[in-house]
Amino acid sequence: MHSLEQRIRELEDRAELERVLLQYYTAVDTLADMDGLLACFTPDALFDVADLGLEVYRGHGAIRAFFQGVFADTRYHCHHVTNFHINHLAGDEAKARGYVIGKAEGRGGASVFVHCCYDITYVRTAQGWKISVFDEDSLVPMGDEVSVLHGRR
Amino acid sequence: MHSLEQRIRELEDRAELERVLLQYYTAVDTLADMDGLLACFTPDALFDVADLGLEVYRGHGAIRAFFQGVFADTRYHCHHVTNFHINHLAGDEAKARGYVIGKAEGRGGASVFVHCCYDITYVRTAQGWKISVFDEDSLVPMGDEVSVLHGRR
Amino acid sequence: MHSLEQRIRELEDRAELERVLLQYYTAVDTLADMDGLLACFTPDALFDVADLGLEVYRGHGAIRAFFQGVFADTRYHCHHVTNFHINHLAGDEAKARGYVIGKAEGRGGASVFVHCCYDITYVRTAQGWKISVFDEDSLVPMGDEVSVLHGRR
Repeated sequence: MHSLEQRIRELEDRAELERVLLQYYTAVDTLADMDGLLACFTPDALFDVADLGLEVYRGHGAIRAFFQGVFADTRYHCHHVTNFHINHLAGDEAKARGYVIGKAEGRGGASVFVHCCYDITYVRTAQGWKISVFDEDSLVPMGDEVSVLHGRR
Repeated sequence: MHSLEQRIRELEDRAELERVLLQYYTAVDTLADMDGLLACFTPDALFDVADLGLEVYRGHGAIRAFFQGVFADTRYHCHHVTNFHINHLAGDEAKARGYVIGKAEGRGGASVFVHCCYDITYVRTAQGWKISVFDEDSLVPMGDEVSVLHGRR
Repeated sequence: MHSLEQRIRELEDRAELERVLLQYYTAVDTLADMDGLLACFTPDALFDVADLGLEVYRGHGAIRAFFQGVFADTRYHCHHVTNFHINHLAGDEAKARGYVIGKAEGRGGASVFVHCCYDITYVRTAQGWKISVFDEDSLVPMGDEVSVLHGRR
């Protein structure tokens, strides 16, 4: 059995891991808060949305460029996070998985309503827990709606 | 670093703040449990749904009158709470933000499926945490569907 | 006031109760992981989906047979869990309630998008918390869409 301090630390870590993910989606949904968004990721993070018809982006520079396009081209969007659960937590690494319902409309008129899942790897840094791998996929067979909305730039 | 007791207290507070919000929406969805609904709010709470095309209601009396109308006019509704996170907790005050997906049908036939967000202020009272400000807005550009469903009274 | 150890234990229990439910839905959504699914239930668990136009299944054998049919007949589905809250926790028994948004398409072409709630009873066993009663109902007036998709076997 772990000490009380260790058990509290684990509960705090679990809450913080969820908080980081919600900070990410909150920032995404503002269509503006790039600093808040990038602060959720390690500088060399892998952001993999290839399964959605987009690409794999590596590092703050590439993630920023991707979201600059998203922020410019999206009229509105919102991401409802569900089913978040941590399936590994040991030392300074953690893994989690969950779902998200996304609703969006692009400035060009494209509209999507998607059901996705994500697998996340986190690392504990001097600035707190950060996402080092974010891998999103669709839970439902998908056409090219997301790439029409966000991609092909 | 806070004491173990303080850290446990904060984790308990965070769980309780979420529980109060879920009690509110659970009561709303019964279309009947007015006491359970009002018990989530301070007697002078501000309930602001003006951004949804409705009004600002202040205090148990005004909130009760609003929901008496909602309960009478709604055939069914349900509110799926997502993305709840506490962004301030100090002493006897807390603030939180989150999303909700609402599906409803009115007795008059109006049907809505909405994506909303809320900003909440809580205060700790002798009866536990209560909502003192509840401010709901739409995450998606909205017409008059909510005011047709619930409002204009 | 309970001891610090008791308070931590309760927070851990609450997290574990949610984890078991998410494990159940995660397994359901794989359309394959029968062992992971059954591991969430006591051997004699009551699985009651009669309110959805299906039946009451009692015990691992009956639950397995039901999901073998579901897994065979479903093209894809996903279940977004929301509003999970524990409304009773004492000793080795707990009760919880929550909602779920389900999206599914059957191999026969039937497609559903449903809003449901569930009431769960858990018991603490030597293998951890398990679901002993799972009772699901619709939050929205429902036709025969779920029984067409999953049922009538």
